[in-house]
Amino acid sequence: MIIVMKGGTTTAQVEEVSKRLEEIGYMVNPIFGVERTVIGAVGCSEHEKIDAMEQLRGYEGVEDVILITKPYKFVAKEYKGGKAAVDVGGLLIGGDEIVMMAGPCTVESEEQLFATAERVAKAGAKVLRGGAYKPCTSPYSFQGMGVEGLRLLKAAGKQFGLKVITEVMHVRKVEEVAEYADILQIGTRNMQNYDLLREVGQSRTPAMLKRGMTAKLEEWLLAAEYIASGGNEKIILCERGIRTFEPYTRNTLDLSAVPALNSLTHLPVVVDPSQGTGRRDLIAPMSKASVAVGADGLIIEVHPNPDHAIKDGAQSITIESFETLMPELELIANAVGRSLKSVVTA
Amino acid sequence: MIIVMKGGTTTAQVEEVSKRLEEIGYMVNPIFGVERTVIGAVGCSEHEKIDAMEQLRGYEGVEDVILITKPYKFVAKEYKGGKAAVDVGGLLIGGDEIVMMAGPCTVESEEQLFATAERVAKAGAKVLRGGAYKPCTSPYSFQGMGVEGLRLLKAAGKQFGLKVITEVMHVRKVEEVAEYADILQIGTRNMQNYDLLREVGQSRTPAMLKRGMTAKLEEWLLAAEYIASGGNEKIILCERGIRTFEPYTRNTLDLSAVPALNSLTHLPVVVDPSQGTGRRDLIAPMSKASVAVGADGLIIEVHPNPDHAIKDGAQSITIESFETLMPELELIANAVGRSLKSVVTA
Amino acid sequence: MIIVMKGGTTTAQVEEVSKRLEEIGYMVNPIFGVERTVIGAVGCSEHEKIDAMEQLRGYEGVEDVILITKPYKFVAKEYKGGKAAVDVGGLLIGGDEIVMMAGPCTVESEEQLFATAERVAKAGAKVLRGGAYKPCTSPYSFQGMGVEGLRLLKAAGKQFGLKVITEVMHVRKVEEVAEYADILQIGTRNMQNYDLLREVGQSRTPAMLKRGMTAKLEEWLLAAEYIASGGNEKIILCERGIRTFEPYTRNTLDLSAVPALNSLTHLPVVVDPSQGTGRRDLIAPMSKASVAVGADGLIIEVHPNPDHAIKDGAQSITIESFETLMPELELIANAVGRSLKSVVTA
Amino acid sequence: MIIVMKGGTTTAQVEEVSKRLEEIGYMVNPIFGVERTVIGAVGCSEHEKIDAMEQLRGYEGVEDVILITKPYKFVAKEYKGGKAAVDVGGLLIGGDEIVMMAGPCTVESEEQLFATAERVAKAGAKVLRGGAYKPCTSPYSFQGMGVEGLRLLKAAGKQFGLKVITEVMHVRKVEEVAEYADILQIGTRNMQNYDLLREVGQSRTPAMLKRGMTAKLEEWLLAAEYIASGGNEKIILCERGIRTFEPYTRNTLDLSAVPALNSLTHLPVVVDPSQGTGRRDLIAPMSKASVAVGADGLIIEVHPNPDHAIKDGAQSITIESFETLMPELELIANAVGRSLKSVVTA
Repeated sequence: MIIVMKGGTTTAQVEEVSKRLEEIGYMVNPIFGVERTVIGAVGCSEHEKIDAMEQLRGYEGVEDVILITKPYKFVAKEYKGGKAAVDVGGLLIGGDEIVMMAGPCTVESEEQLFATAERVAKAGAKVLRGGAYKPCTSPYSFQGMGVEGLRLLKAAGKQFGLKVITEVMHVRKVEEVAEYADILQIGTRNMQNYDLLREVGQSRTPAMLKRGMTAKLEEWLLAAEYIASGGNEKIILCERGIRTFEPYTRNTLDLSAVPALNSLTHLPVVVDPSQGTGRRDLIAPMSKASVAVGADGLIIEVHPNPDHAIKDGAQSITIESFETLMPELELIANAVGRSLKSVVTA
Repeated sequence: MIIVMKGGTTTAQVEEVSKRLEEIGYMVNPIFGVERTVIGAVGCSEHEKIDAMEQLRGYEGVEDVILITKPYKFVAKEYKGGKAAVDVGGLLIGGDEIVMMAGPCTVESEEQLFATAERVAKAGAKVLRGGAYKPCTSPYSFQGMGVEGLRLLKAAGKQFGLKVITEVMHVRKVEEVAEYADILQIGTRNMQNYDLLREVGQSRTPAMLKRGMTAKLEEWLLAAEYIASGGNEKIILCERGIRTFEPYTRNTLDLSAVPALNSLTHLPVVVDPSQGTGRRDLIAPMSKASVAVGADGLIIEVHPNPDHAIKDGAQSITIESFETLMPELELIANAVGRSLKSVVTA
Repeated sequence: MIIVMKGGTTTAQVEEVSKRLEEIGYMVNPIFGVERTVIGAVGCSEHEKIDAMEQLRGYEGVEDVILITKPYKFVAKEYKGGKAAVDVGGLLIGGDEIVMMAGPCTVESEEQLFATAERVAKAGAKVLRGGAYKPCTSPYSFQGMGVEGLRLLKAAGKQFGLKVITEVMHVRKVEEVAEYADILQIGTRNMQNYDLLREVGQSRTPAMLKRGMTAKLEEWLLAAEYIASGGNEKIILCERGIRTFEPYTRNTLDLSAVPALNSLTHLPVVVDPSQGTGRRDLIAPMSKASVAVGADGLIIEVHPNPDHAIKDGAQSITIESFETLMPELELIANAVGRSLKSVVTA
Repeated sequence: MIIVMKGGTTTAQVEEVSKRLEEIGYMVNPIFGVERTVIGAVGCSEHEKIDAMEQLRGYEGVEDVILITKPYKFVAKEYKGGKAAVDVGGLLIGGDEIVMMAGPCTVESEEQLFATAERVAKAGAKVLRGGAYKPCTSPYSFQGMGVEGLRLLKAAGKQFGLKVITEVMHVRKVEEVAEYADILQIGTRNMQNYDLLREVGQSRTPAMLKRGMTAKLEEWLLAAEYIASGGNEKIILCERGIRTFEPYTRNTLDLSAVPALNSLTHLPVVVDPSQGTGRRDLIAPMSKASVAVGADGLIIEVHPNPDHAIKDGAQSITIESFETLMPELELIANAVGRSLKSVVTA
């Protein structure tokens, strides 16, 4: 059972409701968000629940009492009555237009970043990606340029009219990253880092939640629910491949997740064919397939010189390849009744 | 090392070569095909191999001696110098046109089959699918109508101008099935049934080899090589999903396999979104993605009344849905520079 | 619903029952075994089933009519009221004693086989393993010595008092292999080769069914049911590892399958730590774990000189290692209340 | 390349070395630990590395310069020249004795915890487990008693002479948990939460790192290296099952990981058969197998009344079952030359 409290509820009111729930026999879990407080309550029989619902609706500060069958509420499609776009400072993700995100795996230098940003913007990308804090399997790998990388991202975004997305890994740095980025990316390794999810749930900055390497769709949606239940409903999901036995590709990109999510949740779904395949030559065909299957956007690693990239050059395409790909994707977008502007006249 | 013998080689010539190879120290494996004999030889050092090659080229009946690095030869892309179409009685699979295969999971009755065949043909399908011998996880399940099912398939194909594809499961029935079918389907469970692969390798009828539930790309290509090394090079590959941890879909359709195979082999690649997802609502979007990613065809389960299908109704679409899907696929085919004729004027 | 017919039933009686079932609305699947005929019937509502059961019990030749909830019957634990041993010519598998099977992956020569057989017999092995027909991923690999290998196996078994187990891959060679072997092994790639399972079901020779690389426990038991429903109930299951993402081992040996099967089926369960790990250094510890977890036997690849083995040397241990391992296993067998005779005084 | 700085190195010295590395062309990543500073450096050719090594050895504050082939150093077996025990306040984990950890999944009440602690201690357990902060797939589940749970754990541990292990999930609560616990558990979802790993690396409290659901052995060891490179070398690994396609068990317990790790790392390895199987009836046989395969300890969920447990009752055994299991495990421990004291006379 979920008790949604009204905006501006006092702590005393939440305690009052919690106390009553515990008397009835529930285990209680209040989630204090920025915009609202939600109380999760588990452990009673169906019969007792019905009684409790009736009682609790009358309590002060209670807005709604919900018996849930699906284990998530705020990310369920029913909650918004259909697909809903996320507004990133005026850019809609999940609307008619398919949104292209592009940029280097890792921010390496001003030169590298600005050269890439300028040309992907001209080719029609709307969001600049780039890692400033990098999650590395080895502690001895280069961990990113940190705040200097963030500054470069913000500057490049501003200069070329791009929104900025970058990964946040540290609970204590969510605010810092949000100063520079328009979208906070939560990486695959942190999909069930609940500490971080809660912290991002307290932020006002839109978040893109990547699927865990081995996450079932329901687990992924519950991870998104962690963020949403804290009050941050601006969530974008990103399919980035799951781990299987196949060694040819780095991961197995699960494109069926896109239409599946489209029927389960209102959240927009973006596909990452770079991480999803780990192979440069598969990025273009899988990008086309992603548009055809119903993705709301793509995030692609683009590097001026992939063979000299510090990280993940094997899964980055050149700027020229990106420029070639864009009009091809536009044709497919049109074939499925969506738009994607491949040439920008600014 | 592979020694390809000339057409019309005598057994004595093969033995002569084999004897010499064994003297050098090789383990020898001759494959007697209809059109040619191929001798596999393993176990010597690189140095000895070079010597042996020189010697063997001079033997009677020897056409070619090949040192292989890729473990397959006849299915490798290099063998045909690029993608190559398979000719199924005049219908090209792997050419410019994307070939649609449709029909019921299982042949249930003349009425069911003919009703389906007529309308999928009108909607643009070129091949009729239907199971006469069914591989069933349980020995107590309905195992198909057998030869009566084959007769119905052939009759329906003839009446509506469709080629026929159906599964062959029994080594002793390859010839029987080939009398009725234009394409022999080898199912996922039999991908490494080498006994059956060899038997189909002796046939002149084109074969469609489904990917094993857990087969790596290389294993799949080596299974195809079993058929090709017997002399039957008319092979079509069919991606039908791999087994993963995700319970939402029956399998995880690995669309990245399509462009990967397009760079490894000349064989055409077909996608099965019915088996690949196990969910009716995912068939249309995954069909679109398959066309976009570069598939040469689709095989879809279509049933006049899926909810009353004996088998796999959950992964069959209605005839009406198929008719709706075809022009949508045509748009995407055109967007990727292929053709797919969705309306047939006959 | 399963209708078990009495021994000596006539075809006419089976047809009579089948006709009646079809009239009621069932899809019918009769399985004619050596010792009995079983009729599978599916497709009616529960209500109709009850009626049909009453009627059919009265038919001539009908021994029993069973409504099944578990999808298998003859291999279910309830069928024998507990675990049951399989008698292989006087050797009990699944009894108090843990049975050791050992020998080379592939029969290479008389010298290699006899040297191995003599010493593993002295160390306490009861069954000699060795491949005469080898399932090879590549058609160009050495496919085994064939019938010459079978002859050597039988001779070595006779000389050293060992039963013989070897793989059967070809539907048409089940009888041939059964002339030489005491146990017919069905390999992992053929676990769902129903053609072969049915053929082995018609044999009187005990069979060992290896788990498919990606088979769920229920699918494995249903594959065993294919054999049992044909009348051959002497089935041994062999856990040999499943395919996962972990590259360190060739497969992931699923030891939890052993106690799970011990609660689901009466069939004995053997573990193959050679195939299950693919690494020589893991065979001893995983053998110990197998005995501790409740396995009825082990099948281990042993080679006089693993580094020169034609196949799978990396997963074979030396004869000396086997001799060292046996008394260690005996200690653990005793610790779990089983016996394993590690020193044979002959 | 890894540069290990001497204890007491100044920041200036680290910067000096880093600057030189960057001049040569390296990407530099210094890790400031409590006891030492380590500098990871990547990106140069082998030739340049050799030169750099020679130079850097002469720098002030540099203790050692290591060229690594294995990607981890401090957790590699070579680092300690063999297996090494971790000392937890006088209790050795990884020594001759197999250490039993037992207790409820979640701390629910003083009564529940103390009743369990008293009897598992008497039966021979040395460590009390219990969740105070629970990682929950759903944000609405009960998230644990928090600090009140920690207090109860510490009190119960003190009263019955048990060390305490409990999970730490929050970067900001590592110190708090370390006040109450003797071992900090890092759960499967946080295995690649590098933020948390670094924080635990700064602690002096021993840590137990559970394997990620889908982690390869190398990734797991690199996660441990994150902790070790921060200066906390008291690390215990815990195999808890990996995610596969098999639905019968919650996870597939990969026991081959135990001997594999025993040959790769000096760290002790503990097995969790509760999480690893998710089934009460499989805990006893898999515990026996774990001891036989070479585990240094077991962590088992024990509850006075598993059917009324708040969480994971299905994978908890009763106190009585634990008491029965202990002497059975002792027999196997002895059979593999280890000790495990199943009856404590205090």
